[in-house]
Amino acid sequence: MKEATNKGWRHKIHEVIYGTHTRAGKLFDIILLIVIVYSIIVVMLESLPRFDVKYHRFLDISEWVVTVLFSIEYILRIVCIKKPSKYIFSFFGIVDFLSTVPKYLSFFLVGSQYLTAFRALRLLRVFRILKLVRFVGESNNLVRAMSASRTKIMVFVFFLVIISVLLGTTMYLIEGPEHGFNSIPHSVYWTIVTLTTVGYGDISPETALGQFIATVIMIIGYGIIAVPTGIVSAEYASAKKKNEGNRNTDRFCESCGTQIHREDAEYCRKCGYNLSEHQ
Amino acid sequence: MKEATNKGWRHKIHEVIYGTHTRAGKLFDIILLIVIVYSIIVVMLESLPRFDVKYHRFLDISEWVVTVLFSIEYILRIVCIKKPSKYIFSFFGIVDFLSTVPKYLSFFLVGSQYLTAFRALRLLRVFRILKLVRFVGESNNLVRAMSASRTKIMVFVFFLVIISVLLGTTMYLIEGPEHGFNSIPHSVYWTIVTLTTVGYGDISPETALGQFIATVIMIIGYGIIAVPTGIVSAEYASAKKKNEGNRNTDRFCESCGTQIHREDAEYCRKCGYNLSEHQ
Amino acid sequence: MKEATNKGWRHKIHEVIYGTHTRAGKLFDIILLIVIVYSIIVVMLESLPRFDVKYHRFLDISEWVVTVLFSIEYILRIVCIKKPSKYIFSFFGIVDFLSTVPKYLSFFLVGSQYLTAFRALRLLRVFRILKLVRFVGESNNLVRAMSASRTKIMVFVFFLVIISVLLGTTMYLIEGPEHGFNSIPHSVYWTIVTLTTVGYGDISPETALGQFIATVIMIIGYGIIAVPTGIVSAEYASAKKKNEGNRNTDRFCESCGTQIHREDAEYCRKCGYNLSEHQ
Amino acid sequence: MKEATNKGWRHKIHEVIYGTHTRAGKLFDIILLIVIVYSIIVVMLESLPRFDVKYHRFLDISEWVVTVLFSIEYILRIVCIKKPSKYIFSFFGIVDFLSTVPKYLSFFLVGSQYLTAFRALRLLRVFRILKLVRFVGESNNLVRAMSASRTKIMVFVFFLVIISVLLGTTMYLIEGPEHGFNSIPHSVYWTIVTLTTVGYGDISPETALGQFIATVIMIIGYGIIAVPTGIVSAEYASAKKKNEGNRNTDRFCESCGTQIHREDAEYCRKCGYNLSEHQ
Repeated sequence: MKEATNKGWRHKIHEVIYGTHTRAGKLFDIILLIVIVYSIIVVMLESLPRFDVKYHRFLDISEWVVTVLFSIEYILRIVCIKKPSKYIFSFFGIVDFLSTVPKYLSFFLVGSQYLTAFRALRLLRVFRILKLVRFVGESNNLVRAMSASRTKIMVFVFFLVIISVLLGTTMYLIEGPEHGFNSIPHSVYWTIVTLTTVGYGDISPETALGQFIATVIMIIGYGIIAVPTGIVSAEYASAKKKNEGNRNTDRFCESCGTQIHREDAEYCRKCGYNLSEHQ
Repeated sequence: MKEATNKGWRHKIHEVIYGTHTRAGKLFDIILLIVIVYSIIVVMLESLPRFDVKYHRFLDISEWVVTVLFSIEYILRIVCIKKPSKYIFSFFGIVDFLSTVPKYLSFFLVGSQYLTAFRALRLLRVFRILKLVRFVGESNNLVRAMSASRTKIMVFVFFLVIISVLLGTTMYLIEGPEHGFNSIPHSVYWTIVTLTTVGYGDISPETALGQFIATVIMIIGYGIIAVPTGIVSAEYASAKKKNEGNRNTDRFCESCGTQIHREDAEYCRKCGYNLSEHQ
Repeated sequence: MKEATNKGWRHKIHEVIYGTHTRAGKLFDIILLIVIVYSIIVVMLESLPRFDVKYHRFLDISEWVVTVLFSIEYILRIVCIKKPSKYIFSFFGIVDFLSTVPKYLSFFLVGSQYLTAFRALRLLRVFRILKLVRFVGESNNLVRAMSASRTKIMVFVFFLVIISVLLGTTMYLIEGPEHGFNSIPHSVYWTIVTLTTVGYGDISPETALGQFIATVIMIIGYGIIAVPTGIVSAEYASAKKKNEGNRNTDRFCESCGTQIHREDAEYCRKCGYNLSEHQ
Repeated sequence: MKEATNKGWRHKIHEVIYGTHTRAGKLFDIILLIVIVYSIIVVMLESLPRFDVKYHRFLDISEWVVTVLFSIEYILRIVCIKKPSKYIFSFFGIVDFLSTVPKYLSFFLVGSQYLTAFRALRLLRVFRILKLVRFVGESNNLVRAMSASRTKIMVFVFFLVIISVLLGTTMYLIEGPEHGFNSIPHSVYWTIVTLTTVGYGDISPETALGQFIATVIMIIGYGIIAVPTGIVSAEYASAKKKNEGNRNTDRFCESCGTQIHREDAEYCRKCGYNLSEHQ
């Protein structure tokens, strides 16, 4: 108890802000989360004209309270850490900065207060707060699969863009500005809307030939949607398998060298050697 | 025969209502199913203005007949069971209650009769009625896969929401209320419509920059649709494999009774008994 | 040569119509395919008002020529086969019948000639004509995967319908007829349009709560699109594996009994026994 | 150094244009890439009416500069190669030709300059320029998976078209021209828009029966989207596995030089040589 006091107030604050194992740390994290969610809701409501007119004063005060709270937290985070620069230029450091500054800038610049919506990024803290060890462990395979398929998906997107430019130009030549395909970039936009099966319908082909080519584009889109899915699916299965394989391979029979696959095995399945006896 | 009579009328009713193996039980289940489907159709037709005007009297009587039948069934279910509280607070108990009460409430509250559409949930009984042992067995892998990928998909949805808030705010700033992006929540709604490739087209970007970002959102959506699919696909394959692995369950150690999982095992992994010697 | 003549004209026709190995049989199949495609194009063009006005006479004559040709083929198919009833009630027998009759019925019934579009089903013959042994072999895994996942997908569709009824009713209660959700069946239709990520936009939620629930529905739809894909994907992989496994397992070393996995192996990989010498 | 000079200027140009390992070759490739991207942007901007009016002169000159540069490059490519015909009729030879000619044709033909958008195909050069050995290696599995699933996906598309013709005709008969289903081809177009879950909403069913069938089509589309994804996913996993299997290629039989594929092999499968004895 005495030792803890000796560590000084900086250490105490550090424990509350960065720690997640103490009672105070947990409480701080939960309050922080509530404030973050609350601040995002306030920004959203502010953008609703009906709401803003009625409760403008309340929303504005809420905004300022949240901003001041975040500023205090930001300063405390810098103060109580040994190497402040490490935090300031980290991902969360920049996010924390961006979630306080815009409100102060709103004195000078109109519209900048909307940037406070970047506070949503702070929600990513929830992963740390909920001590998502299990989640991180589980999504590890996912991260590995994503990273393994990254270059492949980039090549895929690159092809997608080239195809879209070609098909978009073709559609522009066929349909033309009189049917809503105002320009090549606009047609490329339409092509991507169609290829990804989004299909707003703000522009849609009206000539028979245009509709025929649109049909072909849709079927292409339907076919190539399989590619990224197939890649991620296979890579994920592969990452999962590797992970599972690694879970058991560190145990060998001392007598005959056979690998023991099952964790609950007590005897070697090849020579009958008693495994537990000699551990 | 005498024994059955001794068990009293409660037991008999129990056998008919809960049992699925006797003739009477089967008949009861089939009639129940028909009444459920009929009651849902009645609720649906009632909401059609043209139909309701013409056949209002008929539909109303149908509703009442169904409701009374369901009420009788509900009371019988409570009466004939030993621990009524167990049924009342079970999933089907609540569903059964909700499918009778709204009609009675319609005396006092307007609109409450539409809640009877919750009767659709009763259709889930069909799984029990059709004695879907085979189905449950087959969808077991599916359930296991779903449960294994639950946390991962929740993390995924969480990311989706954060991305949507950020991109939605960006689109609100670019397009603004003059192009239909009336507020941030509205823009977030649009972003999710686009990310999930639904694409209603009730709102669609009109500025060049907005369309460019919409294109990026679509490609992101196209890419991340691969993630849940990949997860479920891999988990399902893995659950299926495990299940197949467990299928080799016809081999037990003669000495200690432990199940032998690996086909190439020569010694029991629990007691070291020589399996091959005594075959 | 003499023997062929003895078999009579029925046999000859049989060879041309049903055979695919002789020169005449091949020619017949190709002509048949061309006529089928031609007849479908004619039916399609007939439905185009502009085309029909201009070339009505030509299209009508084309229709009649095709119908008479199909009738002759149908009669010949019945005449030259030993058990006509087997053909008549087979899938293709019914399709062939349906592709001739509607035109004759058009004397009496208006609109029935459109049923001739069922001729499209005759296109399935292309699989037989192109001697798609390779295709059938390759799509065998696919067929097996589809059949293995049939019940599971049916269960899935059943759940989809129940969810749609519940969510559709909820949306009807929230949005109501004043925002285009005219009735419960109409709302259920909208829910399925949204869940399947089709998103026409003929109806779209207009209240804030409706848009929020729509968002939830989309994310659910986005999540459950993974389920059928995952099932088919895993079942297909499993069917493929089984098929590949079966391709090699019929070869064992005569000396030590080890299974020979590689088809080009000449010596046993376990005991060095010369495999080819003793075959 | 002297030797390089002896090879003449043709060889030097060849090294710059076709080579990617020398400094000059790299620089040439990067400049080429920039010019290609620039020329595509120019073509796109030209199609924007607002831009074209303002900067018409600038865009036109840009176009001509790019075209002349491409023409020089095209001539040099032909001149410095030994067998010009091989280049001229190669994929890139034709693309290079098509990316210069349209501009010259624009003297005579209106609209032909839009064909210059085919320059986008030149972007495929980026794969060669970035020396994408790693990419090609990684996407090799993908190419193999695509090629393995080609016929199956073609069969799938063929079925899709047949189903669309049948369902499109059915919808035409139900909805008819009064609800926007003007003709059978138009209805088939709508069916494909629905099946592929694009859903523009330019046409949408209005009768109750039409909406019901649309619902069925959507669920079918939702189900069959699983098929190509499942195929590509499984084939990709299989190609990946094979590739990993082939990776164990560092073990050769000392006696006959045959590659040993299986890690547990003790004897060469070609000559029966004892592998383990001599290790």
